[in-house]
Parts: sequence; C-alpha cells; structure tokens
Amino acid sequence: MNGETMSEPSAETDESVRDVVIVGSGVAGLSAAVYAARADLEPLVLEGPEPGGQLTLTTDVENYLGFPEGVGGMELIQRGKEQAQAFGAEFAHETVEDATLDDRPFTLELASGEHLRTRALIVATGASARWVGADGEDELMGYGLSTCATCDGAFHRGDDVLVIGGGDSAMEEALFLTKFAESVTVVHRREELRASDIMADRAREHDDISFRWNTELLEICGSQEDGVTGATLVSHPEGYPKERYEDGEDVTKETVDVGGIFYGVGHVPNTDFLTETPVPLTESGHLDTLTGMTTETAVEGVFGAGDVMDPDYRQAITSAGTGSMAALDAEEWLDTVDAVTELTEAPISAD
Amino acid sequence: MNGETMSEPSAETDESVRDVVIVGSGVAGLSAAVYAARADLEPLVLEGPEPGGQLTLTTDVENYLGFPEGVGGMELIQRGKEQAQAFGAEFAHETVEDATLDDRPFTLELASGEHLRTRALIVATGASARWVGADGEDELMGYGLSTCATCDGAFHRGDDVLVIGGGDSAMEEALFLTKFAESVTVVHRREELRASDIMADRAREHDDISFRWNTELLEICGSQEDGVTGATLVSHPEGYPKERYEDGEDVTKETVDVGGIFYGVGHVPNTDFLTETPVPLTESGHLDTLTGMTTETAVEGVFGAGDVMDPDYRQAITSAGTGSMAALDAEEWLDTVDAVTELTEAPISAD
Repeated sequence: MNGETMSEPSAETDESVRDVVIVGSGVAGLSAAVYAARADLEPLVLEGPEPGGQLTLTTDVENYLGFPEGVGGMELIQRGKEQAQAFGAEFAHETVEDATLDDRPFTLELASGEHLRTRALIVATGASARWVGADGEDELMGYGLSTCATCDGAFHRGDDVLVIGGGDSAMEEALFLTKFAESVTVVHRREELRASDIMADRAREHDDISFRWNTELLEICGSQEDGVTGATLVSHPEGYPKERYEDGEDVTKETVDVGGIFYGVGHVPNTDFLTETPVPLTESGHLDTLTGMTTETAVEGVFGAGDVMDPDYRQAITSAGTGSMAALDAEEWLDTVDAVTELTEAPISAD
Repeated sequence: MNGETMSEPSAETDESVRDVVIVGSGVAGLSAAVYAARADLEPLVLEGPEPGGQLTLTTDVENYLGFPEGVGGMELIQRGKEQAQAFGAEFAHETVEDATLDDRPFTLELASGEHLRTRALIVATGASARWVGADGEDELMGYGLSTCATCDGAFHRGDDVLVIGGGDSAMEEALFLTKFAESVTVVHRREELRASDIMADRAREHDDISFRWNTELLEICGSQEDGVTGATLVSHPEGYPKERYEDGEDVTKETVDVGGIFYGVGHVPNTDFLTETPVPLTESGHLDTLTGMTTETAVEGVFGAGDVMDPDYRQAITSAGTGSMAALDAEEWLDTVDAVTELTEAPISAD
C-alpha cells in the first residue's frame, strides 16, 4: 500500500468512543445532559441505582427558581429528563462499577458487564443522605421527614420538630429550623455532641432548642396524607453509641407529638467507583475539583457536578448550575484537545 | 438611672437597618431573593435600571433545566419575581448610585436620593453585553440577533451567521457556532484579531469560518416575525478601528443574506458603584469573590452572584445557582455575627 496514507485508529475516529458520558441522573446530570446535547456532543447518561437522585425523595420543591407555585421533586426530574432527551441525550439504566481513568479514552465498567469508552467524563453521582433506620422512614421520607432543613424547613412554621444527629450538620439544621418551628429538639444517641465547639455552643444557647441525650429514634408515626404526627423515642442511661435498640431491653420508651423530623446524620458522596483512579477525593470522599469557579478535576477530561463535588450548598438549583458548568467545561476541553491534535498530528504513512 | 441596664443602639435592634439588600433583579438576584426570603431575612431587591436583566433580551430559553418546551426569557423572570414575592421579598424600582461599605451597617445611596442601611449586601447587578450600534439592533435583539452563542446557537442549524468582533469571545462564539451554522463569518473592524494566538489560530484554521476584515456592521435586516434575514456591511481598506462609518463616505457597502448575527464584542460588569469601596474588582471590572466555591468577597457581609462575578459561564441556570449560594452565604454570615454578638456583648450599664 505504498504511497497511501492512513491514520492510526484514534479516539477521534473510533465510533465506539463517546465524547461525553455523564454518570448520574439527578439535577446535576440532567443539566449537564441538556448543555452537552445542545452542544452536539451526543451525551450518554448512565442513570445509576437511583434514577433522578435525591430530589425524587422530595415532594415539593419551593426554592428552584422558575416555579412560583413550587414543583414536585419527581416532576422536576421528569421535566429535566424530557428536556435532555429532546436535544438528543441518551439514557441508559446502568450503574458504573469501576472506572479506568489512567488511559485514554477512559473506560467504564458497568454493572451489566458491558464496557464503555469515553473521552470526557462528567461525574454527577450525587450523595446519599444517611438514614437512621427508624420504622416508617421509607413511607414518610418527603412527607414530613426530610434530610434537608434549608429545603423543607419553611413547611414547618409553628411545628414542634425533631432533629436527629449530633454533628455540625445536625446543629445547622436545628439552628435553621428555629426560624420556623415552635420548638426544636435535637435527638442524639450519645451524651455529648460531635459538633464543633462554636456550632455546639450556638445550638446549646438557643432558647428554642432543647436536647434529648442518649436517645434513639425508633419509629416515625404519621401517613403520607397527614405527614409526620409523632415519634417514638427510646432512652437509655448509657446511650446507644454503637448498637441499635433491641426489642425487650429495659429502657424508657416514649411517644412524642411532632410535626416534622429532620435527619442530620450526614451525607455520603457516591464516589466508590473512583477510589482506585487518579481522581483526587477530599477527606469526606467528595470529588475534589480544582480551586475556583470550575468543575475540572486534577485529571484532564474528568469533571464533577452537583452534590458529589459540593458538600456545602447541596441545592437543586446549585446542582443544575454546576451541571451546566461541567458540560461547558467538557465541551471547551474537547475542543482544545481536537485543535491541538489537528495542529500537531500529521497522518502516519504506512510502508 | 442607676442600676438600670440598657444596650447601645446597634444594627441588630435598629429597625431601619435591613438584614439583606439584593442589588439587581436578574436571575441571580431573584434566586437570592427566594432563598433569603425563605430564610426569613425579609430581603429588599433593588431592581436597577434594567429590571430582569439580560434575560429580558432573550425570547426563548431552552437550556434552563425544568422547562422541556423552553421558557420565554421575560416569562422566566416574571415567574421568579412572583416566587420571591410569594415568600415575602420586597422589590423597589430603585438603582444604587453609591455605596459606603467601610462602615457597618453598610449604606447605599439610591438614585432617588434615599439612603438605605443594610447588614449584608448581595451584589447581583449583572453585566451588560456591548452592542455595536447598528441600525435595527433594538428591534431584533432576541429575534435572531444575540449576544450569546451558547444560549442561542442551536436555533441556527443550517443558517449562515455573522459574528461581530475580533477578540477571544468572538472567536469562541464563532467556533461554537460551527456546530450548527452552515457558515460562520467573523466581521471585524480591524485587519487583525485581538484574540489570543491559540483562539485566533483555531478560528482561522476552521473550514467553516471565514473573515471579513476592516468591515463594520451597519444595519441588520429582518423583523420580529421572520427573525434576522440579512445585514448591510461596509468595508474600508483602512478599517474602522476608531470611528464609525459616516454616511456619504467613499466605501464599499454590501448587503448579505444571513439568518443570525452574534455580537461578540464583550460584556461590561455593572460595578461602577463599587469602584470607591473596599470591595476588590478584577482587572475586567468583575466582582472579585474569594477563591473556591463561594460568593463571599474580601469584605465580610458583601456577596456576589451571577454575571457580575462570573465572566466565564454566564448562563441563566448558573446565575440562579450562585444567587442561591449568595443568600445561603449571607444567612450563615448573619447567623455567625449574631451568635458572636450574643456571646461577647454584655449589656452596658449606665451610670
């Protein structure tokens, strides 16, 4: 084939290699999909084990700009998915088990056993709020039981509410809830707080916050129609720092009337599939993005959006914002790589 | 008054002092207002000279997550304002002329002559896209004439389009538009680009981008019904680097058929009222926020949101995101100040 030129198979010409894969289908992933699809990058969204993410656990979203009457969490997710699909984003009901990010293109191993190759990767896997395991929490999550005071506190004006937890995030929730609730009771399984001194002091000195030490939430009472109406608490002089209450133990059980319960026992970012990759994670396991207003990570071509990279704000509207940023960052990065490749890579002639 | 204690009049007890004033009523200001109002901070929004901001110049917004059929720019603004008002945010048709931020509480001087005092200030004054002064631009802005390729490029599949400008932002717009447009012509008043070498090279070497040097956009043809249909260009061998074309000059005039025109001549952040304050601005005049994912500035209690602090992404959804961040940051800051005040300020006894 003398004189004929051919180029090596490369990521740019191999049609089995995607330009962008988005992992996660919560607000961040959907907003990234809208932007990537509108930039003609034909993104594939891997929906993960909980399609739609944390918002699907919320009944009413009042603070997402654009919906003066509020919007259902599930409805917002469905609208976003429809919007992304309208621009050509593809969705697959798949979960990433493992990722190889030290070779290019990147390879993703899916739970189905399939392998996917992609030039750019947007990680929007979110975080999962920890649950405490009380009876009734499956039914009442989003119906008076919440993992986000900023999101749902305003629904509890005049209510007596419980906050479960003893760390900084529980104290923050408790303090925020004093704006609305008649009373806030922090229920903690130990007899001292894990929170930082300043947060603990602020909560302790607040007139509307009281504490139940060595106490565990056993059961949440109520219904999806009426919301949360009460809670069964179990107290033990030695507390329950390690093991949960077992039926029959000699302890004080009490049912209290409350209108709302907030879990403040933390969030776990969904980054397990990244632990063996060169992508840096923070101490709390969040995706570590570069400093400044960017979604880039230390690995070129890997971008982060939403709660997986944002331990602080964790709002639907902020996640939609960082989702769009990730797609714009990915698009610009792909463009730059292509331009450099075109400028430097001469075709290779075969002998 | 021996033995009686009284506290000094302070910002916390003076009812004429606001907790939060939000300057600007575009997407960022509105999202900040929703969050601040929901946190019971009773925010006042100063709407500024262009209530609703840049989005009011856009007909269809397709990429704001949650609206699969798109939403009108003006409609999104109206919905957002309604939402903020529903939670108790107040709006005033006022513009800030001057700000005194080295004393607390801060003082804002309004165009009406009135003075306002506030503990926290959220700057969401946005940026104004530069216009070139062509005939027809008032009528056609948002109807085929655009200042944002990322926002509106997808409306121009198969069109011949013009990009006006010679800097980096014009090159970015041109490159982005090649994804959709049949052809992209960069119209520049000089005979060389101001853009960085890499951006200029990428645009010059792109097959679908051509250049009209020493050329000025004189008139945009079309109607709000049909959109942009053409443009009158005037060329001069010596270019128009400084002065605009005057009727009667001996030059080449030409009318070209185009389906879209994008202004890429930059944006000016609206920070004039901050130039004499201690709030740092960047070289481009943008509000300089602290490093990292935050809206804080070097002046405690002053926060920035939206295009005024974001020269890069400038999307409706990112502005809504930073707006909510600014309100959350302001709320946390106010809380901390109050807690510290309560812990350290003993009542002053009068002799």
